[in-house]
Amino acid sequence: MQILNELIVLNPNSGIPAYLQISNSFTQHIRVGRLRSGWKLPGTRDMAALLNVNRMTVVAAYEELEAQGWIEMLPRKGTFVKAKLPLLSPKAIQSETVDFNFAEQPGFIYDKKKIIPVVTSDFPPTGKLVFNDGFPDVRLAPIEELVRCMRSFSRLAVNKRYLMYGGAAGTLLLRKTLADFLCDTRGLSITADNILITKGAQMGVFIASSVIITPGDEVIVGMPGYDTANITFRQLGAKLNYVPVDEDGIDTHAVEKLCARKKIRMIYVIPHHHNPTTVTLSPERRMHLLRLAAKYRFAIIEDDYDYDFHYSSKPIMPMASHDSSGNVIYIGTLTKTFAPAVRFGFIVAPKELIRIATYFRKTVDTQGDSLMESAIAELYKDGTIARHIKKSVKLYKERRDHFCGLLQNELGDRTLFKIPDGGMSVWTKFLRDDLTKVSRRAFDLGLVIRDGTDYDTGKQKFNSVRLGFASLNFKEQVQAVTILKEAITVKS
Amino acid sequence: MQILNELIVLNPNSGIPAYLQISNSFTQHIRVGRLRSGWKLPGTRDMAALLNVNRMTVVAAYEELEAQGWIEMLPRKGTFVKAKLPLLSPKAIQSETVDFNFAEQPGFIYDKKKIIPVVTSDFPPTGKLVFNDGFPDVRLAPIEELVRCMRSFSRLAVNKRYLMYGGAAGTLLLRKTLADFLCDTRGLSITADNILITKGAQMGVFIASSVIITPGDEVIVGMPGYDTANITFRQLGAKLNYVPVDEDGIDTHAVEKLCARKKIRMIYVIPHHHNPTTVTLSPERRMHLLRLAAKYRFAIIEDDYDYDFHYSSKPIMPMASHDSSGNVIYIGTLTKTFAPAVRFGFIVAPKELIRIATYFRKTVDTQGDSLMESAIAELYKDGTIARHIKKSVKLYKERRDHFCGLLQNELGDRTLFKIPDGGMSVWTKFLRDDLTKVSRRAFDLGLVIRDGTDYDTGKQKFNSVRLGFASLNFKEQVQAVTILKEAITVKS
Repeated sequence: MQILNELIVLNPNSGIPAYLQISNSFTQHIRVGRLRSGWKLPGTRDMAALLNVNRMTVVAAYEELEAQGWIEMLPRKGTFVKAKLPLLSPKAIQSETVDFNFAEQPGFIYDKKKIIPVVTSDFPPTGKLVFNDGFPDVRLAPIEELVRCMRSFSRLAVNKRYLMYGGAAGTLLLRKTLADFLCDTRGLSITADNILITKGAQMGVFIASSVIITPGDEVIVGMPGYDTANITFRQLGAKLNYVPVDEDGIDTHAVEKLCARKKIRMIYVIPHHHNPTTVTLSPERRMHLLRLAAKYRFAIIEDDYDYDFHYSSKPIMPMASHDSSGNVIYIGTLTKTFAPAVRFGFIVAPKELIRIATYFRKTVDTQGDSLMESAIAELYKDGTIARHIKKSVKLYKERRDHFCGLLQNELGDRTLFKIPDGGMSVWTKFLRDDLTKVSRRAFDLGLVIRDGTDYDTGKQKFNSVRLGFASLNFKEQVQAVTILKEAITVKS
Repeated sequence: MQILNELIVLNPNSGIPAYLQISNSFTQHIRVGRLRSGWKLPGTRDMAALLNVNRMTVVAAYEELEAQGWIEMLPRKGTFVKAKLPLLSPKAIQSETVDFNFAEQPGFIYDKKKIIPVVTSDFPPTGKLVFNDGFPDVRLAPIEELVRCMRSFSRLAVNKRYLMYGGAAGTLLLRKTLADFLCDTRGLSITADNILITKGAQMGVFIASSVIITPGDEVIVGMPGYDTANITFRQLGAKLNYVPVDEDGIDTHAVEKLCARKKIRMIYVIPHHHNPTTVTLSPERRMHLLRLAAKYRFAIIEDDYDYDFHYSSKPIMPMASHDSSGNVIYIGTLTKTFAPAVRFGFIVAPKELIRIATYFRKTVDTQGDSLMESAIAELYKDGTIARHIKKSVKLYKERRDHFCGLLQNELGDRTLFKIPDGGMSVWTKFLRDDLTKVSRRAFDLGLVIRDGTDYDTGKQKFNSVRLGFASLNFKEQVQAVTILKEAITVKS
């Protein structure tokens, strides 16, 4: 009985009623074999004295244990751990004196190579400057407006039903609003039935490729290209065919040659500000690609995540707006407009594909947050989103110009870059310095900068990195470039 | 030239600048072949007169078109649709007079049978009563508190970084808070590293099974069982083995027999209030299952979506809290506590599995909404969630008792049901009336009730349905049962 005193430790600050803490402790100890089937529990009076609690607390705990089927109370005999419980596994009995702990490793067999490791980002560390991959300045995001909309929407009784299940493709209000917006801004003559609302562009890539790719399928991607998309396709069993990306985007003549040689299922294209090199796919190549897709009947995943951010010219109409044969699945996002943590994107595709993609989406996460979707529809309608885009574009253009000037002045002899037409980062090649070492030294000096090795393959080493300028104001840009210069020159 | 007047229609209310409307129209018409390569555009003055706009608007439109590479301005010759554009596809040229429209069907080849159709719910229709599948009453959901938290959190400058990318497994704050909460309430001795935050329980099922299942794997599920989970596994290529579910939950002796016969990769179990029959898995069977999993090294997906809602006794500790060999992947949700549209759930598993599941999650949707995650952590910490659960349980118990009384009094001779220990629905068998017909007639009378055919297989027809009582107050329950009775008796 002495041991019970040690085994059952009550925590008055846990917020859990004492009787439940006691019954929980018992079930735990019964399971791991410390208390065995047939073991007689102390009387409630003794137990109460032992634990220094009120006797009624122990009575409640025992009743709880009985209700749960762990113990039985036999009249005039006492209370016992139930005999009918299965015997404990040998392993648990052996570890009788060791505290029970969650296993570190899974105890079941499965294919450990099925899932490919991918870079998972952490929140930016406080106190350090960050050259991110090309993300917006979240300090500008209209979060207050978003939350205010959510609040006023949820207050109306009639809107409560939007808190129920419904709309696996997204709320109808948002899909209608978005269809109008995309028609006006991108020449997409679509209706709500052509839209599936997703959690960011990545979910668009995931859902579209999950619907299309069958293991063994041939898929074309750009080289260099977007790592996470490539991993998504490989995980689905696709064979990747790499096609060069030059100043006009992905080389469509190389695509044509591949199509002649083998059955291509799908191509993944980033038409504006290709990740990582920031180039834009030319109108000629867009049309060429459309003709190839219609001829060879493959799907084009058009990931236009950066459509809204152009500084030197307006964006080019999406391939989707010119696609009369149903080959394009167009993906967009609000992540770059709002903030990465506001997970909101969309797929535009032929109705039949949206219908099937919606089935699939139901199995992924059932549906989106209808409350937030309703609020976002409101922000489209009242012009908040359009105004925010306009304001951001103006600011990011200034930041781009300021940053490229700095980079040229301070590190022009050591780096090679082109001023990007749009987007939020500068694809920068380091000519003389090993980026891995620069990255490490910069970190110690207070600047986070990636080492660029994610873009490398066995064949090609780029020694290049995307320097995200949009989230840094002028002062921060100066600080960041100063540190970067220091990290480079320290060596020499 | 006359035709241009018809082709380019300006909409003054679209919010799009006129020059952009003009240039967008041109690119559209060039693409579909209405305006061909080499075609000479009218001078800006003529064009302005034709469209009745300021000449500078046309100048801006032409500059835009040139910047985008669609037209070229040759000195002293005029402005032309670019010669270098690829020829248009024959199809588009043939459809010259037909308005361009988005294709209804995909134009690419893919495996149309890959995705299995699944029931996608709509928002409850206004003006009708609904027997849902067992969902909470969203009118009680603490949405105001959630939104208020989001707002105050986002206002603090230091929290802005949580709007950036980061935390594919969920914010550390939420995972820590949840680890403590699960430790206290469910005896799970875990840390933040054992948790992956998901968008609802379904994403937990999707991610866990995607990591574990390789095509051809044998998976065990209950019969009758949860449709969406079964479809998720089948889509991943699993072969389903159906095991009977009786009053004590899934029959573990049948599971044992299967294990002896073939290599089982995974079992899917709903330990509390099995969907659809609402039974609870007994402690004996839980332990039996754990021993079997350790012996045969299969994974247990423990979908404990209904843990918080018990009326007759306290919940039974999860298998995960007794799992020393790492076989259990435990799934929970806040959807039933808050509201279906607040997509929030979690996976608890050995660290190594969480690490791999996080890689996979990155490819699904990158990460969750960190802002909402932070707010939910706050609601756990300040007790809002615990208080809301307590309040709901009290109310739902009253509603259960009231509803079961009604059902017995009004339809006791026509239906068979057991009063559920917990959860939000009553699994009701219709003894004499065809549920498909009842469902149709009830709809016309203003009551939505499913026809139960989703549970049927070729072998078994249940003629049963889950009657969700929790979202209906007493008055609504009376109305609903009255309509249901009318729908049944109209026939006889």
